[in-house]
Amino acid sequence: MAVYTEIADDDLAAFVASYNIGGLLSCKGIAEGVENSNYLLRTETNTYILTLYEKRVDPGDLPFFLGLMEHLAQHGLNCPLPVHDRAGNTLKTLAGRPAVLVTFLDGVWLRSPQIKHCAELGGALAKLHHAGKGFSIARANALGIEGWRPLFDRFASEANTIAPGLRDTIARELDYLEAHWPRDLPSGVIHADLFPNNVFFLGDKLSGLIDFYFACNDAYAYDVAVCINAWCFEADHTFNLAKSRALLAAYNARRPLSQLERAQLVTLARGAALRFLLTRAYDWINTPPGALVTRHDPLEYRTKLQVFQRFSNANALGLDGHP
Amino acid sequence: MAVYTEIADDDLAAFVASYNIGGLLSCKGIAEGVENSNYLLRTETNTYILTLYEKRVDPGDLPFFLGLMEHLAQHGLNCPLPVHDRAGNTLKTLAGRPAVLVTFLDGVWLRSPQIKHCAELGGALAKLHHAGKGFSIARANALGIEGWRPLFDRFASEANTIAPGLRDTIARELDYLEAHWPRDLPSGVIHADLFPNNVFFLGDKLSGLIDFYFACNDAYAYDVAVCINAWCFEADHTFNLAKSRALLAAYNARRPLSQLERAQLVTLARGAALRFLLTRAYDWINTPPGALVTRHDPLEYRTKLQVFQRFSNANALGLDGHP
Repeated sequence: MAVYTEIADDDLAAFVASYNIGGLLSCKGIAEGVENSNYLLRTETNTYILTLYEKRVDPGDLPFFLGLMEHLAQHGLNCPLPVHDRAGNTLKTLAGRPAVLVTFLDGVWLRSPQIKHCAELGGALAKLHHAGKGFSIARANALGIEGWRPLFDRFASEANTIAPGLRDTIARELDYLEAHWPRDLPSGVIHADLFPNNVFFLGDKLSGLIDFYFACNDAYAYDVAVCINAWCFEADHTFNLAKSRALLAAYNARRPLSQLERAQLVTLARGAALRFLLTRAYDWINTPPGALVTRHDPLEYRTKLQVFQRFSNANALGLDGHP
Repeated sequence: MAVYTEIADDDLAAFVASYNIGGLLSCKGIAEGVENSNYLLRTETNTYILTLYEKRVDPGDLPFFLGLMEHLAQHGLNCPLPVHDRAGNTLKTLAGRPAVLVTFLDGVWLRSPQIKHCAELGGALAKLHHAGKGFSIARANALGIEGWRPLFDRFASEANTIAPGLRDTIARELDYLEAHWPRDLPSGVIHADLFPNNVFFLGDKLSGLIDFYFACNDAYAYDVAVCINAWCFEADHTFNLAKSRALLAAYNARRPLSQLERAQLVTLARGAALRFLLTRAYDWINTPPGALVTRHDPLEYRTKLQVFQRFSNANALGLDGHP
């Protein structure tokens, strides 16, 4: 559930007038995104998304996020494009918060993606990885492997309040991953959070990607591993091999995975499962029940982690053939 | 904060296909209305609001609400118009709930209406009262004076937990109003909840009215009294005579108030203040802190009630001159 900052009438009118986008027709808070306040804003010329960045986004990261969206759009990816005001700025201030207006992307996100949608996603992910090349700003992955142990240390003593044995499960997996994590994989800009709610479809065709606020520089194959976690399990958390196979085949067709990436894919999938287990467990412990923010079940990712722990190589993920 | 029912992908696609409105482009939950789930839905031909009625709306009332919107639109009022599907229906089912698609109304609601906006409102309210004539369905005002004592009885014993003396304040006012309430005023369809968030403006011009889910048959002048409560106080709950004068003059120009209505206007304003004090107090006591629904401060309406209690006649409300 998103936050909605109230915007004073005159402030909104002045904000819209600072762009060359025509008069304001409507502005409605929308229920997407938990980090920021998002409004669907219509003017005489077009439809836009207005975002006010709330406290969870570091303003120092905004030039990376906004520059990345512009770079990706210029390189052929369908994603929101920050709009420049009459003075040429994309990053502005509204209601005391950093504010950005981006173009509206048609499409709906799928509550129940099917195999064909996973194939669409795989192709779009490879396209994103190619389109990000040459982007001049870098951003470390704050939720990459170096961030996992410090995050775990903040709630380890309470982990078993979520489920018996959870503390040991996480501690053992963290030890394993720190010992086995690949450090020399092809890297570049990754989305790092490409869940179904960030991928739009028109009919069965993928129409665009949104929400680059976890984007960073890290291994491309780790982004693939995040998507396998996010797209290739059923509602009962059972692994769907056909979805993973479709995702990987489509990705591989556009950006062939190297032998090194293939050899590490199961480890990366375990790491991605642990990353979401860690953040969800932390949020679960630190979000009071009944708060405006919906808590996501951390144990969903313990189940996914256990699935990947049983896999000995990427064939179990549906990665067939050779590059 | 609104509720958002999740709609399955296939159900939404089939719902859109049942209308002659083109293909689905986007569907986003919006943060307006606390009673229902509302989505801003865009198709290849137009923009719409999709409403799923949650448990607080009685499905038996929907033919009144939908028929009223059609009647008002046909009689020249700018309000959402229910869209007929290919079979001619406006009331449908989606995600297990009654569902209606209405046309999208351009405009923004004002967080801080000024005097000129109160004048626009007064004119639109009179236009609404004229446009509602001839509508064939009737609906009693469930939150009219007959409903106030039963509602009070449900929380009277806890009223003083909100503020010392509140129980006595309400009990005395209820006695007074039951003894003095006018029963023979000109009546017809009223909106009954025309707060600023239900009135849209484009620039300084009123562009339309929304949310008819409290509409009912009652005295026209009571609707005026509700608007005085909702529009003519400042953020610190002081009465703004200039706003009330502007509202009443514009209303009176389009629908002149009778001597009887003028004589009763202060009593009606007290009644409207009590009505919102009662519902807000009830909700305050019965809504857990931290729930998704924002609780509105009941004591705002105790203050407004006390303002009106000091008024001896409608001149104090800014009603000048004679019809």
